[in-house]
Amino acid sequence: MSSVIGKNIRLSVFGESHGEAIGCVIDGLPAGVKLDMDKIYFDMARRAPGKDKTSTPRLEKDIPHILSGLLDGVTTGAPLAMIIENTNTKSKDYKDIMTVPRPSHSDYPAFVKFGGNNDVRGGGHFSARLTAPIVFAGAVAKQILDEKGITVGAHIKQIGEVFDEAFDMNCISAQLLKNVSSKTFSVIDDGAEQKMRDEIEKYRLDLNSVGGIIECAAVGLPAGLGGNMFDTVEGRLSEILFGIPAVKGVQFGLGFGFAAENAKAVNDCYEINDGKVCLKSNNNGGVLGGMTSGAPLVLSVAMKPTPSIAAPQDSVDLEKMENTTLEIKGRHDPCILPRAVPVVESAVALGILDMLSE
Amino acid sequence: MSSVIGKNIRLSVFGESHGEAIGCVIDGLPAGVKLDMDKIYFDMARRAPGKDKTSTPRLEKDIPHILSGLLDGVTTGAPLAMIIENTNTKSKDYKDIMTVPRPSHSDYPAFVKFGGNNDVRGGGHFSARLTAPIVFAGAVAKQILDEKGITVGAHIKQIGEVFDEAFDMNCISAQLLKNVSSKTFSVIDDGAEQKMRDEIEKYRLDLNSVGGIIECAAVGLPAGLGGNMFDTVEGRLSEILFGIPAVKGVQFGLGFGFAAENAKAVNDCYEINDGKVCLKSNNNGGVLGGMTSGAPLVLSVAMKPTPSIAAPQDSVDLEKMENTTLEIKGRHDPCILPRAVPVVESAVALGILDMLSE
Amino acid sequence: MSSVIGKNIRLSVFGESHGEAIGCVIDGLPAGVKLDMDKIYFDMARRAPGKDKTSTPRLEKDIPHILSGLLDGVTTGAPLAMIIENTNTKSKDYKDIMTVPRPSHSDYPAFVKFGGNNDVRGGGHFSARLTAPIVFAGAVAKQILDEKGITVGAHIKQIGEVFDEAFDMNCISAQLLKNVSSKTFSVIDDGAEQKMRDEIEKYRLDLNSVGGIIECAAVGLPAGLGGNMFDTVEGRLSEILFGIPAVKGVQFGLGFGFAAENAKAVNDCYEINDGKVCLKSNNNGGVLGGMTSGAPLVLSVAMKPTPSIAAPQDSVDLEKMENTTLEIKGRHDPCILPRAVPVVESAVALGILDMLSE
Amino acid sequence: MSSVIGKNIRLSVFGESHGEAIGCVIDGLPAGVKLDMDKIYFDMARRAPGKDKTSTPRLEKDIPHILSGLLDGVTTGAPLAMIIENTNTKSKDYKDIMTVPRPSHSDYPAFVKFGGNNDVRGGGHFSARLTAPIVFAGAVAKQILDEKGITVGAHIKQIGEVFDEAFDMNCISAQLLKNVSSKTFSVIDDGAEQKMRDEIEKYRLDLNSVGGIIECAAVGLPAGLGGNMFDTVEGRLSEILFGIPAVKGVQFGLGFGFAAENAKAVNDCYEINDGKVCLKSNNNGGVLGGMTSGAPLVLSVAMKPTPSIAAPQDSVDLEKMENTTLEIKGRHDPCILPRAVPVVESAVALGILDMLSE
Repeated sequence: MSSVIGKNIRLSVFGESHGEAIGCVIDGLPAGVKLDMDKIYFDMARRAPGKDKTSTPRLEKDIPHILSGLLDGVTTGAPLAMIIENTNTKSKDYKDIMTVPRPSHSDYPAFVKFGGNNDVRGGGHFSARLTAPIVFAGAVAKQILDEKGITVGAHIKQIGEVFDEAFDMNCISAQLLKNVSSKTFSVIDDGAEQKMRDEIEKYRLDLNSVGGIIECAAVGLPAGLGGNMFDTVEGRLSEILFGIPAVKGVQFGLGFGFAAENAKAVNDCYEINDGKVCLKSNNNGGVLGGMTSGAPLVLSVAMKPTPSIAAPQDSVDLEKMENTTLEIKGRHDPCILPRAVPVVESAVALGILDMLSE
Repeated sequence: MSSVIGKNIRLSVFGESHGEAIGCVIDGLPAGVKLDMDKIYFDMARRAPGKDKTSTPRLEKDIPHILSGLLDGVTTGAPLAMIIENTNTKSKDYKDIMTVPRPSHSDYPAFVKFGGNNDVRGGGHFSARLTAPIVFAGAVAKQILDEKGITVGAHIKQIGEVFDEAFDMNCISAQLLKNVSSKTFSVIDDGAEQKMRDEIEKYRLDLNSVGGIIECAAVGLPAGLGGNMFDTVEGRLSEILFGIPAVKGVQFGLGFGFAAENAKAVNDCYEINDGKVCLKSNNNGGVLGGMTSGAPLVLSVAMKPTPSIAAPQDSVDLEKMENTTLEIKGRHDPCILPRAVPVVESAVALGILDMLSE
Repeated sequence: MSSVIGKNIRLSVFGESHGEAIGCVIDGLPAGVKLDMDKIYFDMARRAPGKDKTSTPRLEKDIPHILSGLLDGVTTGAPLAMIIENTNTKSKDYKDIMTVPRPSHSDYPAFVKFGGNNDVRGGGHFSARLTAPIVFAGAVAKQILDEKGITVGAHIKQIGEVFDEAFDMNCISAQLLKNVSSKTFSVIDDGAEQKMRDEIEKYRLDLNSVGGIIECAAVGLPAGLGGNMFDTVEGRLSEILFGIPAVKGVQFGLGFGFAAENAKAVNDCYEINDGKVCLKSNNNGGVLGGMTSGAPLVLSVAMKPTPSIAAPQDSVDLEKMENTTLEIKGRHDPCILPRAVPVVESAVALGILDMLSE
Repeated sequence: MSSVIGKNIRLSVFGESHGEAIGCVIDGLPAGVKLDMDKIYFDMARRAPGKDKTSTPRLEKDIPHILSGLLDGVTTGAPLAMIIENTNTKSKDYKDIMTVPRPSHSDYPAFVKFGGNNDVRGGGHFSARLTAPIVFAGAVAKQILDEKGITVGAHIKQIGEVFDEAFDMNCISAQLLKNVSSKTFSVIDDGAEQKMRDEIEKYRLDLNSVGGIIECAAVGLPAGLGGNMFDTVEGRLSEILFGIPAVKGVQFGLGFGFAAENAKAVNDCYEINDGKVCLKSNNNGGVLGGMTSGAPLVLSVAMKPTPSIAAPQDSVDLEKMENTTLEIKGRHDPCILPRAVPVVESAVALGILDMLSE
């Protein structure tokens, strides 16, 4: 198991959902970057639970406390360490699951892997709560990218049967990305928000949960980032994106939509515009041969329905080795996507910053 | 750019499409493994071009020549180095593209990245021909996995509008995987082969090409491989899979199909069968919390239509900085999927072997 | 800059000498290891300053506070995070050195590298205080090694002109290593302690400091750990050992003593003893061809005199770009070796554990 | 075991002494570098055996054959692969040692590690012959460094009881380094050559061998390369240097000489010279706090006497598990140092290039 990622900018994440604190260390950051803490707090608030009925009622202020690497608000080049204290834990809710694995959760393989020694309270180190340090690190990365003219933003493209507008892949402005990433419920078409909230509420009332798709884009990238073979933009970002709990698919540009397509229809041709080489379309989502093409980077991630639901489910007792029924009593999100948007942005920002640092 | 992958089993790939030789070095292999060269030749033949009208008429025998790491047919524990000489190159076909980038290819970002120094003949190091060493390495990995009772196999799930049967995710036998991986045109339903060949021929006659989806599975895996956060089975396999030219999406289990689903419908519940913990369904494709669950590993990759087509396309002259029309005269595949099946199997086998070696 | 080390057991160290806290994250530890905190406290006390006149009068209790990865005293397999709060900082002592680099210190290259943004108070992240988290991690590693029958211990071999007994390289007992590592002033010959203290006191009174050599050994290692080429036991341990401030040389077995030797005199021959393959001598310090030979691992590190001395020294003002004289007023060690012994043990223990985890 | 090194410039070495070919792949080289093959051949000839009585009579022309990564003599940015065919192998000389490990060699730990499957002919992958690809890669690195104004050169400082002049650490010219590295027997004081040759001849006639020290320096380095903690110049270079067979110690600046020293005598003070910050001495060998100081980088490596000697030695038969006497009949160097000088230069050049590429 590794909670460390990155070649040049190394992120090490630690903590358990119901432990004393969670946090991270970011190693390899450039010195001399002035951090705007408000922007960091804002992204962390976007991810934080308890805002409304779409998320778990667990309230965590999620205030990052920086221990090192920052002097007078400016990065020193030394590792940036941050902790968030866990204040609102109700571990007694989780007693049952010590021996009864929650369906579609990490519980069973973790039990096998760690021989029952892992902390299962609230999912332990496997909890989606561990995405808070990722958002902290991503918010730092986004500020460094912003200074280089690179903007990252994401929105909820789909929840169940409800869809937002998709990005127009060859025509995305930094302003649009800033707009979506400044919303707490990130959609392009504001009209989609209420429909999505209704969709989520429908599943919540049924003690159920629903999946969806988040679409993320980045503009301002130079051409030639990444590489072919085992250094592709797609592979490096996927390695981080699949670290977000519930992500089960990653695609770039048309992605799985390419399967039914032909080259005449989807090849991205070139033209000269204002003396510059431009793409006439961007079906490849800004990545060609594993390298950025200069067009907007566009990717989508598929997220499964939150597996923790209140309805009774079939499971087994790992001690008694017999069938049983599990009723999960903890506090859970009927849909993780609204809170996951800044996590996806963060993963992409961290990946881009790592590639840029070569 | 990096053509090196793997944490414990490190694969380093080299060569250019029209250079003297391509090859690879596999570092970290266990000693004492007897390699069956016929199995290696068979997989390499599955990938090799020139078999029929679905692929480029370029004929390469693709005979791997082992330089080190093997003594009397048994691995020594030292790096296994292999080369394949390039015998059938027609570099004059590629003169035009020196300055006119092929649409949807690596040409343009590579030109920016390498300042025009990269070898563009036949795509150079970016050519899909570089998947031959990956298949060699994968064939070695598959033999080592086979000794551990692990079987990997893939098939073409979709080409254009034609579909093969999909894997029944919770019920895949090693025999089924061996069957599909012993075919040169890998499908589950033999009736799908001719329909797919017809679909490809339709695009070939139109000087066009078509995309598709390859589905890959592995059985016999222990539970608990991989890890959460940045060591997920999904992330580690994706890093390699996106190294295969034309791959634009990777998903596990239902993948993007999760978006419209709800937990009650798709959660994978547990039951005791024959005294063992079993999954009642496998919508997660054998990965939970980033770790193998013990159920079959099932993933799909989306491949775009081969971008090299004979029809004229809009492009630009990078020297004159003016618009132009490009007619690609080289030999190309109207559909890459039939030859890509062993490459996907190889990527998955290498990834699994690397995770198993921890 | 990287404060992350290890392939399988990854240690990430953070903090500045006069910041809020220092600490580390250890990623990849096995689950189920019961930690004896008293042993950890003991090693940290060996390293802690303020014990007597051989070290800086700065008093830090150095109590590690574990934030994650431990449940009921047992490792969970999740990252083990630890912080130590800095309680006794006197930053005003360091004002002068903001622009006047201390001779033989990191100040000047750090100024160039970080453009003046690095935290120079007390040496910042470059301070030897950052060895406290290494000792914490090493104390954890030593307990895991102890369960596998592997013992690591070190002693001061030389300070200035005073020498302790050296290890008899082919005949080191676990008990001897436990003895030296249970001392706060680690020497084999107790008679050497007072002579070394006198030597240090002589330099302290002269506002000067003195160097020395620490010798470290490990017994109980299996043969075959490590590898040749770029995976040698020597190279992997050196990478960590040179991370200890003031270390300027690392040697194995006879090390630099080999230069004047001939093979007949120093080759380590074999014999059968009690049915086992044994070495008749161990001039190679337990490493042959980069791999452990089964004989005791024996290495030495050379440490330079602490560069911070109270006597006035020539330096330059980096702002005014003129020559100046620097008088360092902070609290410093006249000899770092007594406190460095557990750091060397820790580096070696971490390196061995990392190699064992393959 | 890993024969792969480097973070940004990754070198993968393969081959066995008596196999078909040895070689390497260098991944991550910049594109557009014109390589002077004569310079590469020259360094390889310095390392090649059979020149005179100081080395093994085995004659290998050691002509590197480049397979990829070079087009019209210019690097393409793709992996540079190179092979050297083994032409002059006499494997029958090595039959005995299959089961009788050579003292002070890798044979015994390799036997344990690889279960007897490793290729022992001529030392297999453990042979010093594998330093030929390192010299090739180093010769490439030296040319890239040369364009950046960085020069690397080494000389034999000591063989047995005979010494060359040492570098004057604070005053080394690029010209001096070019001079020593253009010699086939690299010494500063030409008068030392014959004395060293006599020393070697003395041991050769006695069927014995002798050790020594190689000193290496690099000038033209910017200040601030490397980093503290686990990214030190010392640690990163040591990791490669210990990959050279027979190296048993590495030290920087005064190294082990620091042990008897005091800070007043050896601290490197600063002064302004011609408007630049200069060091008044360079006892630290150009590295402070793990980073380059701008002064010449100076390091030494201790090499043990070649363990393969013709005189009979005590060993054991690993099959019969009984004591025996071994007489090694192969062709061996009575002193490895003359041929090892370009290998040390190469290791240092590769390490510097890797650090510069960050």
